[in-house]
Amino acid sequence: MIDAKKSEQSDITLHYGMVGGGEGSFIGDVHRKAAAFDGKCRLVAGCFSRTYSKTLATGEKLDISKERLYENYQQMAQMESEREDGIDFVSIVAQNYIHYDVAKAFLQAGIHVVCEKPLCFEIEQAKELKQLAEDNNLLFMVTYSYSGYPMVEEARHIVQSGQIGEIRTIMGEYPQDWLTNLEEETDNQQAQWRTDPKIAGISNCLGDIGSHIENTVHYITGLNIKRVCAKLECIPPKRPLDTNAQVLVEFENGASGMYWSSQIAVGHENGLRVRIYGTKGSIEWSQETPNALKVCAIGEPVQIYSRSQGYIGHKAQQLTRLPAGHPEAYYEAFANIYVKFAQVLVKTLHNQELSHEDLKFTDVTDGLNGVLFIHKCVESSKKGSIWVNVE
Amino acid sequence: MIDAKKSEQSDITLHYGMVGGGEGSFIGDVHRKAAAFDGKCRLVAGCFSRTYSKTLATGEKLDISKERLYENYQQMAQMESEREDGIDFVSIVAQNYIHYDVAKAFLQAGIHVVCEKPLCFEIEQAKELKQLAEDNNLLFMVTYSYSGYPMVEEARHIVQSGQIGEIRTIMGEYPQDWLTNLEEETDNQQAQWRTDPKIAGISNCLGDIGSHIENTVHYITGLNIKRVCAKLECIPPKRPLDTNAQVLVEFENGASGMYWSSQIAVGHENGLRVRIYGTKGSIEWSQETPNALKVCAIGEPVQIYSRSQGYIGHKAQQLTRLPAGHPEAYYEAFANIYVKFAQVLVKTLHNQELSHEDLKFTDVTDGLNGVLFIHKCVESSKKGSIWVNVE
Amino acid sequence: MIDAKKSEQSDITLHYGMVGGGEGSFIGDVHRKAAAFDGKCRLVAGCFSRTYSKTLATGEKLDISKERLYENYQQMAQMESEREDGIDFVSIVAQNYIHYDVAKAFLQAGIHVVCEKPLCFEIEQAKELKQLAEDNNLLFMVTYSYSGYPMVEEARHIVQSGQIGEIRTIMGEYPQDWLTNLEEETDNQQAQWRTDPKIAGISNCLGDIGSHIENTVHYITGLNIKRVCAKLECIPPKRPLDTNAQVLVEFENGASGMYWSSQIAVGHENGLRVRIYGTKGSIEWSQETPNALKVCAIGEPVQIYSRSQGYIGHKAQQLTRLPAGHPEAYYEAFANIYVKFAQVLVKTLHNQELSHEDLKFTDVTDGLNGVLFIHKCVESSKKGSIWVNVE
Amino acid sequence: MIDAKKSEQSDITLHYGMVGGGEGSFIGDVHRKAAAFDGKCRLVAGCFSRTYSKTLATGEKLDISKERLYENYQQMAQMESEREDGIDFVSIVAQNYIHYDVAKAFLQAGIHVVCEKPLCFEIEQAKELKQLAEDNNLLFMVTYSYSGYPMVEEARHIVQSGQIGEIRTIMGEYPQDWLTNLEEETDNQQAQWRTDPKIAGISNCLGDIGSHIENTVHYITGLNIKRVCAKLECIPPKRPLDTNAQVLVEFENGASGMYWSSQIAVGHENGLRVRIYGTKGSIEWSQETPNALKVCAIGEPVQIYSRSQGYIGHKAQQLTRLPAGHPEAYYEAFANIYVKFAQVLVKTLHNQELSHEDLKFTDVTDGLNGVLFIHKCVESSKKGSIWVNVE
Repeated sequence: MIDAKKSEQSDITLHYGMVGGGEGSFIGDVHRKAAAFDGKCRLVAGCFSRTYSKTLATGEKLDISKERLYENYQQMAQMESEREDGIDFVSIVAQNYIHYDVAKAFLQAGIHVVCEKPLCFEIEQAKELKQLAEDNNLLFMVTYSYSGYPMVEEARHIVQSGQIGEIRTIMGEYPQDWLTNLEEETDNQQAQWRTDPKIAGISNCLGDIGSHIENTVHYITGLNIKRVCAKLECIPPKRPLDTNAQVLVEFENGASGMYWSSQIAVGHENGLRVRIYGTKGSIEWSQETPNALKVCAIGEPVQIYSRSQGYIGHKAQQLTRLPAGHPEAYYEAFANIYVKFAQVLVKTLHNQELSHEDLKFTDVTDGLNGVLFIHKCVESSKKGSIWVNVE
Repeated sequence: MIDAKKSEQSDITLHYGMVGGGEGSFIGDVHRKAAAFDGKCRLVAGCFSRTYSKTLATGEKLDISKERLYENYQQMAQMESEREDGIDFVSIVAQNYIHYDVAKAFLQAGIHVVCEKPLCFEIEQAKELKQLAEDNNLLFMVTYSYSGYPMVEEARHIVQSGQIGEIRTIMGEYPQDWLTNLEEETDNQQAQWRTDPKIAGISNCLGDIGSHIENTVHYITGLNIKRVCAKLECIPPKRPLDTNAQVLVEFENGASGMYWSSQIAVGHENGLRVRIYGTKGSIEWSQETPNALKVCAIGEPVQIYSRSQGYIGHKAQQLTRLPAGHPEAYYEAFANIYVKFAQVLVKTLHNQELSHEDLKFTDVTDGLNGVLFIHKCVESSKKGSIWVNVE
Repeated sequence: MIDAKKSEQSDITLHYGMVGGGEGSFIGDVHRKAAAFDGKCRLVAGCFSRTYSKTLATGEKLDISKERLYENYQQMAQMESEREDGIDFVSIVAQNYIHYDVAKAFLQAGIHVVCEKPLCFEIEQAKELKQLAEDNNLLFMVTYSYSGYPMVEEARHIVQSGQIGEIRTIMGEYPQDWLTNLEEETDNQQAQWRTDPKIAGISNCLGDIGSHIENTVHYITGLNIKRVCAKLECIPPKRPLDTNAQVLVEFENGASGMYWSSQIAVGHENGLRVRIYGTKGSIEWSQETPNALKVCAIGEPVQIYSRSQGYIGHKAQQLTRLPAGHPEAYYEAFANIYVKFAQVLVKTLHNQELSHEDLKFTDVTDGLNGVLFIHKCVESSKKGSIWVNVE
Repeated sequence: MIDAKKSEQSDITLHYGMVGGGEGSFIGDVHRKAAAFDGKCRLVAGCFSRTYSKTLATGEKLDISKERLYENYQQMAQMESEREDGIDFVSIVAQNYIHYDVAKAFLQAGIHVVCEKPLCFEIEQAKELKQLAEDNNLLFMVTYSYSGYPMVEEARHIVQSGQIGEIRTIMGEYPQDWLTNLEEETDNQQAQWRTDPKIAGISNCLGDIGSHIENTVHYITGLNIKRVCAKLECIPPKRPLDTNAQVLVEFENGASGMYWSSQIAVGHENGLRVRIYGTKGSIEWSQETPNALKVCAIGEPVQIYSRSQGYIGHKAQQLTRLPAGHPEAYYEAFANIYVKFAQVLVKTLHNQELSHEDLKFTDVTDGLNGVLFIHKCVESSKKGSIWVNVE
């Protein structure tokens, strides 16, 4: 539980536990670095692997007391909830297929949750988790990492303040090229599980990266998707899951969108890019040059907004540490999603009122939207790329 | 007819006439500058306007002998075909709705044709013109200006030589922002006729600029479109014709594509861009930075090809005049489509064999493809953005 | 002489002659294309070569009446000055070493002059030509081609309007790489004469391209150079003339500058770039992306100005033909220097008053400044790269 | 001292202390984040301020045992050297003027040193520290942070492997704009001390950022500077120290260089950029887009190398954590200088042989070079910007 003395010094340390993220896990290490980055969150408990000896090994390296290294996540949820100094929240970074079970266990134990995306595999599961969190007044962050970039926050500020007017059309893309060849036939483990329906679920490319377009656009604009027309392609055809996905989108306000995600687009590394066009202006942001934001107004010179400059809004300023020109990047963005979560969690633990000044983290509703988006796109594609309503 | 003496000196001057392009015509002036650029084509006859006095005035400024300034295009076609020194070809730059009639008249008079895009309004008309040109052994260029850029030629060379492998997916876009507001309610004549179905035909945005994506991709790859799923939007809704068009494309070889054209995309001026992804590599070209071509191979550093450098292929080299680093741009590209046409026309006039070494100009078949593309996209959109076969 | 009737129609045709620019001349063809571009200047006389038969051959190709093809420039100056329909001006595009003699002959014959840079070799010659032009009320343009770019004109407008405040420091560079290897030992004629002191004069790299930095900065800012400290390097050392030149500059207002020109900077094609920093803002322009201008104000987002947009100043607007997004480039810039010259010449021929609204062309004073700059830098370098006053 | 058991697991934890870096110190926090980033270095002792109570407060926040929070650095050096579990090294992040005294104290106590740049103020001091480190076999890193960027490491690999041939000329620049106005007259503390000779030393701009050009170029090329001709300007003149510095450089191999650093260059944030030209190729790197490296070979397309790609060399690969396309930036570069230091320190503590495969950190010799560069440039400028030998 939160250390009151430290909070008085406004240097809160939140204590958290982790499920998954053992040796060889890329994303587990990213979460730990991110949570530790600003000294606000301390890892004190864990169940890093299904194999207890591995959990012990990882825990030792991370200087975690042995009594808080658990044989399974159920045990961890129960025991931590019973401790007086139990964890303030859990971070779930285990493989996708088990997100639902783990999140449910911790929610039922009354523990706040941070969970990697995708939230879970099935729409009904997502709705259940959402209900459970609400019923128990528990915070539930789904870690859409790109929402942590300061210039995404600034884009949100610009769009939602009305600066570019009513949204008319949106272009989103996320091309990569790492599955151009059949990497899963080499010893590339990431390629193996991403292309394996048993572990990755009903979609590979759209689920893994297309859903980041969906979330980033939603985070910036607040717009909900009304219907989709999607074409998911397994390239080459022998692959069981999609590696290229093209989606026509229609939003509730009538705006249109085009989303493209790909893992076979040679020359692209991690090219998430969103372009949002309104009646008065537009914004463009690219993940690979994250410190800049292109802002246009009709009839005016293109403007390049830069992170940390004085004209940047208050919320984005909270998510930056270095002076302008000293670039911040992926790790800092990831740290920022923990900054956002910690800010709200501390207020919650102290029974303080939240305000619209508080930073917004991507929550279980975003997670549900992601699951819906993936399911509806897969349904559209399977039916011959016809239009399918989203809810 | 071609001046034999000059041709012996390999400094051929072709003589041509023009229909349309009178005072205030933007594109007429562009064609004249382009044809004159390299000193190969001389304007010697014209019917620049439906009003004879205007034709006379334009003709005088252009130093054209009065006897070759005509009251109407029918008269011009007949009389030029009867002269011993009659024009070698006609350039049709009149308004879109009359392209068909004028082109037909000159073909029937046995005169080679250069015609602005769109070739005509109806599919049947396009097929008829194509048949007429073939039956009379006449050259027929449809002026897709962007095919004149040297780096588009180089892209064609790279793709068709197999350097990037089998094409898998293609992204094309052409955003502009000049119709963001209701410009047609001001005195902007271009805006007035572009948004007027009587003059512009069944589509504005897709027809005007979307068709450039279609042609540029076809020019580079040689791929034919099998079917489309298109969403054309009239933004704002009170407009009678589309200003935003999003199209899913399927090619005959199974490759997929996404095409976006827009006139309401704030911040974009003339953003034609094509990205073509194959099994081994990719290329990317943008009209606004036309002297560069991004070329990628899987696992290799991105390469930036530059116009006029020694490693550029023979065909693109023929379309460039200045050393690398001295940029060439729109006018020079337009001049190049006349270079291509003139090269083939001179050979034809001298009964020389054509070879695959000759430059390829965009011809009546390209024009027909454009008309088909527009019609099928409009049909798809009207039916609720469903898939429609192209032929 | 100017055709009054046409001038009434505001479609002036100026008639001009050319000295130099025969077969194989690159710059002669550029001048002819540029002068012809907008239909304002017609080539009617010439002495294209020291060999009369070559002049005749070139003249025939260019459709020039044989009686106006001359055996030598002296004859041409005399006879054209005596004709009632004699040329309005002469364009001198012969090799550098003869600029002085030819210009002097035409000035003495009372004919306006356009002359390629460098104006001449010696400072005294330059002063003499300047005096001669002034004494005879003759226009004298020295063709610094980059001053013809619309965004250079816009930069001039921005800087001279005070928008960026008082100038503090200036960075200019012009790197190329075409002399990285000993090209003069191949059959590269350009390389041969550029590196030959007899033809190129006392400097190769600084004289050819460094002087473009000098002029472009002066054109934009109006600042005069007070002193220089230059290091000219012959790389590799066996070369008799410089291929790399680095210059510290001090301006009369106290501002500092750094100029770098190079022909051995691998990876650069024609990289003229100027960056000008004032107390309130800055501008940056690069010749290889000439349609954009970076404009900064302290504490504000970077702005990208784009050619032909509505916010561009009146003078730059006069130098552009195409809508924004349709790039213009080197040929169009070159045409613009003739547009500027023609605008003033027509007024002069009609005894009309010039105003500060008229476009400014780079004149014989600019040419003199160029010769001074080259001489003083060479002097500085020879003395061990010490500071040398410029006048 | 190093924990042997952990080292056997190849998860070494080095223990370190810090001098300076108390509340409000920007660079202290950066060092702590950097050292902690990869879990290799743990902060266990400190003297963060001249005021003991402040040291205690900072220490408590950082969870440092009170017995290892010291009243002054002399005490800290002595007591830590006497402890069996004393620190493995000290990080000196106090103000510039005290670097020499602190470093000397720890060296004399036999403790390895990490010291912020500049190493010290006087040349003789620098030489003394160098001698002291050598005599005591102690490691001494001077933290030139930009040497930690993976693409700087790759540039070093490319240049030193001979890929671009013999170096001919080098362009380095580091423009900023934060001192455009008189910020020191506001409450900007950084501006106050940077422009105060008592704290900043004999130079502000050149010393602070110009020295980063000097070091980055040296790190990449290994070239030593032979002489300089520098012009340091106090802009506006009322400032006691330079805010704009332009330097002509000559290297021992005969290559030339131009270095520009500025704090009044409106529109620039932190624009460190180096361009290095050789007989066969060139490289260019910019700090604001640190994940890319432009690599050119004569006659070949420009190549863009990207961090983490398979073609990147072994040493740069050791300095990157994320897949290509997931940007890393300033904090990660800073962490890398600790990675380099830790790698060598661990080997040293274990008496292992170093090899040329080991990463190179910027050491006391680099620090000395920096002091020399600053002094010689100031001397040159004071003497009227004449050439001055560097040693």
